[in-house]
Amino acid sequence: MRVLILGGDGYLGWPTAMNLTAKGHEVAVVDNYLRRRVCREENVEPLFEVPNLHERANLWQSVSGHEIRLFLGDLCEWDFVEEVFRKFTPEAIVHYAEQPAAPYSMLNRRAAKFTLDNNLDVTINTIFAVKEFCPDAHIVKLGTMGEYGTPNIDIEEGWIDVEHKGRKQRFLYPRQAGSLYHTTKIMDTDLLWFYVRMWGLRVTDLMQGPVYGLETDENEGREKLSPFFNYDEIFGTVINRFAVQAVAGYPLTVYGKGGQTRGYLNIKDTLQCVRLSIENPAKAGELRVFNQFVETFSVNDLAEKVQQVGNSLGLRVRIKPIENPRIEAEDHYYNPVHTGLLELGLKPHYLTQDVIAKMLETVLRYRSCIREDAIFRGVRWR
Amino acid sequence: MRVLILGGDGYLGWPTAMNLTAKGHEVAVVDNYLRRRVCREENVEPLFEVPNLHERANLWQSVSGHEIRLFLGDLCEWDFVEEVFRKFTPEAIVHYAEQPAAPYSMLNRRAAKFTLDNNLDVTINTIFAVKEFCPDAHIVKLGTMGEYGTPNIDIEEGWIDVEHKGRKQRFLYPRQAGSLYHTTKIMDTDLLWFYVRMWGLRVTDLMQGPVYGLETDENEGREKLSPFFNYDEIFGTVINRFAVQAVAGYPLTVYGKGGQTRGYLNIKDTLQCVRLSIENPAKAGELRVFNQFVETFSVNDLAEKVQQVGNSLGLRVRIKPIENPRIEAEDHYYNPVHTGLLELGLKPHYLTQDVIAKMLETVLRYRSCIREDAIFRGVRWR
Repeated sequence: MRVLILGGDGYLGWPTAMNLTAKGHEVAVVDNYLRRRVCREENVEPLFEVPNLHERANLWQSVSGHEIRLFLGDLCEWDFVEEVFRKFTPEAIVHYAEQPAAPYSMLNRRAAKFTLDNNLDVTINTIFAVKEFCPDAHIVKLGTMGEYGTPNIDIEEGWIDVEHKGRKQRFLYPRQAGSLYHTTKIMDTDLLWFYVRMWGLRVTDLMQGPVYGLETDENEGREKLSPFFNYDEIFGTVINRFAVQAVAGYPLTVYGKGGQTRGYLNIKDTLQCVRLSIENPAKAGELRVFNQFVETFSVNDLAEKVQQVGNSLGLRVRIKPIENPRIEAEDHYYNPVHTGLLELGLKPHYLTQDVIAKMLETVLRYRSCIREDAIFRGVRWR
Repeated sequence: MRVLILGGDGYLGWPTAMNLTAKGHEVAVVDNYLRRRVCREENVEPLFEVPNLHERANLWQSVSGHEIRLFLGDLCEWDFVEEVFRKFTPEAIVHYAEQPAAPYSMLNRRAAKFTLDNNLDVTINTIFAVKEFCPDAHIVKLGTMGEYGTPNIDIEEGWIDVEHKGRKQRFLYPRQAGSLYHTTKIMDTDLLWFYVRMWGLRVTDLMQGPVYGLETDENEGREKLSPFFNYDEIFGTVINRFAVQAVAGYPLTVYGKGGQTRGYLNIKDTLQCVRLSIENPAKAGELRVFNQFVETFSVNDLAEKVQQVGNSLGLRVRIKPIENPRIEAEDHYYNPVHTGLLELGLKPHYLTQDVIAKMLETVLRYRSCIREDAIFRGVRWR
């Protein structure tokens, strides 16, 4: 299938591009290096240097024989969007092309406005490009489990049947998120759901939990093909951050009570989920929603797991609860459904001691690159 | 109270400004003449010429003695927002400053993107301005009943208690709208609700139905103080359009089956609702939602009412169902709650035969100004 990956330079975009070519798909990626620019500006660069897209695509072609086409530019600009869709008219689009960090979106007014404008403009341009150039193409949109927040009832897979005063209605599951970034993802859902109803688009919305890990089948043993690995408070997801903190001898920073519970998945499972979605497209006029994670943990669970494995490797891992810089429930009900992707054939990887040990061993190789000052900045929500 | 009206040149903004000064409030208005510019570009100018804000403010001061301060500029630009909030630090803000037409938002890609960017940028700038300059100020935001769409259960006033698998949660009532314009209002709600929770803002969201009429206590007998009166398909609301069609001898254009039911209100009631909201502010950290309309009608009901009154005035009013250019349910359940504003003291004006007759008489004075080609354009949703 011809697959266009928007945001193909990112933590998940680049591994997805390699994986899909390895599975026989024809792939082009689009990126404007936004993530790289923002990491540099905020002084939170990844653990190791990541070659640019041209270098990575050449390297991947030399080791695998698979070509990845590249389009460098900003998807907020319609001229560029038009050029991309004319040159590579996709059958499926994977839309990762957003400012992806909750703390960045809460940093200040300019970062908030940039996140809002960037994320929504890319989404609306993608919708109009599909309508104009490939109305039958399937949009696979990366949403987030964070759109749901932490309601006191079970989180269903995208939709909920409400019975009220003796009548019934199926609604998009009500969403209320914990950061502006997550709120822009809700707004993306609003937009996609509207145009699905109006124009009969095919859309899969992947409500993804935090992802961890850096090894995939395609990059194993080839470090230059590894994804971005951020360990800082702004772009680093919690398990990746804890792995680096454990190696650096920096106490694992648990925010508040640490009862915050989320659904997690290994980067290898993200690749499976995206591929399964592409290979089993949504119907025309369907907004299909999958909750994309494989197991739930509290922050305390994660800290204890990393501590245990770290100590067994001879690291002295401490856990240090700190005042929560975010505004969120620290102790809450959490029971989200996640059957859709399993039914499509997802074979989960779990966060075992072996997996944690392997992550710690990888990070240990880069121990000298860790900059302690990048780990914690205290970006406050208020 | 010091009240800042964003979008104070519009159909509702200007009457609100006069009304609030007449009720003893200190008022400043902001506008960039967006509505005027778009009406000119789309060749759908209002029924009669409306003097500019400086002329209207001078005229109002000469007849009433009340000053209205003016700020001309674009609220999407932070520099300007900052200047306004430094010079006039409000206790309440009435936020009308959006591209307000559903058909315009469906016209083409540029109009859609403009609606999206403009409406959300003004809202986020307003939120940040309140945080920075007047954190205790009360934002009265004009939303729309259209945010709810036409679900098969009763529409509650902003919130719904859901019982699911034996557990309970109060949610923002799920929203799904029928145009991109209405969808941007949902996204405004997402934004406001997020920052209410994060920063403890005070917000009232007025979910307003279509407004009709042009006479208020302040402009009666003074035509130069009348609001914009659009009768075209893009900016004209349905009752105003039907009044002009009846006078012009143009068949009343009922879209499809005509069973589309909405909640309506007289412009005089908009003024009451906004004033009551300001004078009874939401609490800090509260998103208060009112459903702002006083009675519901189907499009067929409205066409028949206008026909009956028109014929009694000697007009020969025909009704002509046409293929629906929109995508919407033409026959649906509709039972929205609307008690909040009545409890605050709203005294409704209803759509009586006298009220319709008075509207028709006013329009008759401008009969020669009606341009039939402006009435129907056939902006299609697909």
